[in-house]
Amino acid sequence: MSPRKVVVTRQLIEPAQKLLEAASDLELIQWPTDQPCDRSWLLEQAKGASGILLMLSDKCDKELMDAAGDTLKVIASFSVGTDHVDREAIRERKIRLGYTPSALTDAVADLTVMLILMAQRRAGEAMGKVLTGQWPQMPWSPLLMTGPQIRGTTVGFLGFGRIAQATLQRLIPFGISKALYLTSKPGQPAKEDHYGLLKEGSIPVSPASDWKQLAAESDVVVVGCALTPSTRHIVNSEFFHQMKKLAVLVNIARGPVVDTDALVSALETGDIFGAGLDVIENEPNIQADHPLLKQPRCVLLPHVGSANIETREQMAVESVKNLLAGLKGEAMVNEVEP
Amino acid sequence: MSPRKVVVTRQLIEPAQKLLEAASDLELIQWPTDQPCDRSWLLEQAKGASGILLMLSDKCDKELMDAAGDTLKVIASFSVGTDHVDREAIRERKIRLGYTPSALTDAVADLTVMLILMAQRRAGEAMGKVLTGQWPQMPWSPLLMTGPQIRGTTVGFLGFGRIAQATLQRLIPFGISKALYLTSKPGQPAKEDHYGLLKEGSIPVSPASDWKQLAAESDVVVVGCALTPSTRHIVNSEFFHQMKKLAVLVNIARGPVVDTDALVSALETGDIFGAGLDVIENEPNIQADHPLLKQPRCVLLPHVGSANIETREQMAVESVKNLLAGLKGEAMVNEVEP
Repeated sequence: MSPRKVVVTRQLIEPAQKLLEAASDLELIQWPTDQPCDRSWLLEQAKGASGILLMLSDKCDKELMDAAGDTLKVIASFSVGTDHVDREAIRERKIRLGYTPSALTDAVADLTVMLILMAQRRAGEAMGKVLTGQWPQMPWSPLLMTGPQIRGTTVGFLGFGRIAQATLQRLIPFGISKALYLTSKPGQPAKEDHYGLLKEGSIPVSPASDWKQLAAESDVVVVGCALTPSTRHIVNSEFFHQMKKLAVLVNIARGPVVDTDALVSALETGDIFGAGLDVIENEPNIQADHPLLKQPRCVLLPHVGSANIETREQMAVESVKNLLAGLKGEAMVNEVEP
Repeated sequence: MSPRKVVVTRQLIEPAQKLLEAASDLELIQWPTDQPCDRSWLLEQAKGASGILLMLSDKCDKELMDAAGDTLKVIASFSVGTDHVDREAIRERKIRLGYTPSALTDAVADLTVMLILMAQRRAGEAMGKVLTGQWPQMPWSPLLMTGPQIRGTTVGFLGFGRIAQATLQRLIPFGISKALYLTSKPGQPAKEDHYGLLKEGSIPVSPASDWKQLAAESDVVVVGCALTPSTRHIVNSEFFHQMKKLAVLVNIARGPVVDTDALVSALETGDIFGAGLDVIENEPNIQADHPLLKQPRCVLLPHVGSANIETREQMAVESVKNLLAGLKGEAMVNEVEP
């Protein structure tokens, strides 16, 4: 049997690259850098390929599948989401699709705690004062640059999956008093208790009866739910009006869950104390004059939730494993159901 | 007996102000805003005062004590340090000195965790890219904006008092593997185990034999020691050379413990991965062209360690209690030994 051709759209991080190169029964065609590959290169190289390992930035559409032809059996995507893949076309052609959703819980939960603290402690504003040379002229006063403390707070989670629960686990020794959560079944206990915090935990953790209760009682609101038609703009001006004036909002999920205009005006009018965002509507097209960037109590990061070295290594290794497993007809680490 | 005169150099936060006003046997003279008082006003009003409640920004020297005269029995300072007080003059005149060092453990430990995560996850650099409108042009690559993960790290504490131990307590659910610490007695176990982490903790916590071991083995170094002649510049270029290339340095103690020039060059040459500082040599005189501010992997905050609302309220209340206790000859919450 002639070696099966695989196309890989990047150079991978070392452990993944080694794993890939160790598969001696493959004809390996690989883009030579760790920057996005040219589309025309990909379409040309895809011809006759059995598998393609690609990134979020590589559109996996009918054009690409047509270019590959009938030989194509496996797509291994180095990504948590699969928005860049034409799922229907994949199904029709019976191509298996692997992805890498499971590696990033720690990385995102770490970042969530960071954003909560940055929003409460006004980190963006404080750094800005130093960077612009204002520190020498800041007259000390007892409430200078103060924000609310995390000890004693109620933390409300919109969405209560693995990342939210990992965040809660990290917050407990900061002295939070209580956690509330809202899932798609308001008032119902969460199905999964990933870290044993719900039944035997050291603080009360309970489902909110609705979004109003969650908004009104939380000192910290963490948005960690999936984006669906029913969660789009669930955090809107009504939600902000319910929130406490010293509360902060953190979004580590998807931008459109939060109504950006409503957030800008909640910060402007003092309906809430601050915000920490890793995601925002219309990202990455955020220009320097975006109205949210004028709010000193808002921290906005460029979607770096999973950006730690170990996580990206693990994602790369898993995407190679998915590719190889798919070619051999074995079980992938994570496969999208057809 | 005529009411005793007290001078207070600010308007205080509400609970403290109420406590002060409830003391009906006092003639209360108080600066009318929460901004620093005029020195000339203070010197004039001090005449005949029995007690003065003052801030870090009010110099408590012989000139002030002379202006007050023999009536002065109590200084209550709203501060953790007492560098602004002429301790010898206080001793000679048998004036009692109260201060407020105990309220801020939580606030500083929270900020320390925030700075560790910001240094690892490149928060300053990431925010800067968004603020300057670079997000739309950031081509995604697997290692874009990545930093080291906290899970699995060894955290080294230079100084291991209450704040350092409170920080360690918060870090445990992030999955750190091990803690090392160095006190003024290298290799000796810490005297106090404030949170039960040393003997029965879930991870190994052990004294380092010397600074070299601490520098070489830690993925995160937290500077939390007092500034003394032997700790000044203890973190210098030799220290940075010993550190791991993916390690971060966090200083929440006093600026001069870290040699700033050595830090700039360690960041420039990649001897360490990043830094998070709440304090720096020569603060607050840090201009916008300070060389450290050109290092994208360094976060510098304007000494806001204790800046949360609850902490400052507690400090204000304690300073009033110290003032009142001093006037009555009772025990203060915290009094400086003469």
